[in-house]
Amino acid sequence: MGRELTVRPIGVVRNSISGPERPADWSLIESELVIDARWMGALDGVEALERLTVIWWFDRREGEEVPMKVHPRGDHSVPLRGLFATRAPIRPILFGLTTVEALSRAGTIIRVRGLDAFDGSPILDLKPA
Amino acid sequence: MGRELTVRPIGVVRNSISGPERPADWSLIESELVIDARWMGALDGVEALERLTVIWWFDRREGEEVPMKVHPRGDHSVPLRGLFATRAPIRPILFGLTTVEALSRAGTIIRVRGLDAFDGSPILDLKPA
Repeated sequence: MGRELTVRPIGVVRNSISGPERPADWSLIESELVIDARWMGALDGVEALERLTVIWWFDRREGEEVPMKVHPRGDHSVPLRGLFATRAPIRPILFGLTTVEALSRAGTIIRVRGLDAFDGSPILDLKPA
Repeated sequence: MGRELTVRPIGVVRNSISGPERPADWSLIESELVIDARWMGALDGVEALERLTVIWWFDRREGEEVPMKVHPRGDHSVPLRGLFATRAPIRPILFGLTTVEALSRAGTIIRVRGLDAFDGSPILDLKPA
């Protein structure tokens, strides 16, 4: 349905979590959002936000077959549920959507806490939470 | 920065708002999310959600030059602010992000209230709010 859309990431996630193992608690993980220099001016005011919503790309799941249903949070004791009723990281379009704590900004680098993205994940958009 | 990503929309918004005029209050507007038939199975359970977050595409703004700063909500009495510190509909990647009230589902059509998208806008992802 519909034409394809092409998007160019605005930046990349940098943190200490290279995967595939996940940390016990993503909410404690600090990351840097390294935004492309050409968007410098568009970041003015981000430092005043306490929370930021990040749209990013689950690049680790590229090329995988997309199931119609999943066990929420991978918990097989919970019945299968349609993918769009979950936030599973494997989806038709591999968007991650996370509201994080904004800690500081230095130029085009924004320090945040609580982003559940692996190191190197492309960043697609930032919005005030 | 980074390679381009190509995405194929999962569906389209249908409502009575064709634009360019906006309604006085988007929160009252009812829309149908018409999802492509191939994703039917992935919608199971969406009808149990009260609120749904929709990632959609501001297709009306394609081809426009992207400013670095905007007046929030177009209000010129508010100082210019970096684009990423606002939810302005003109952005490097034209993602709309809206949490809506889920009213009902009939097959691949989900009825919602409060989506601030014009008729025909591509839908990219649905997640539980």
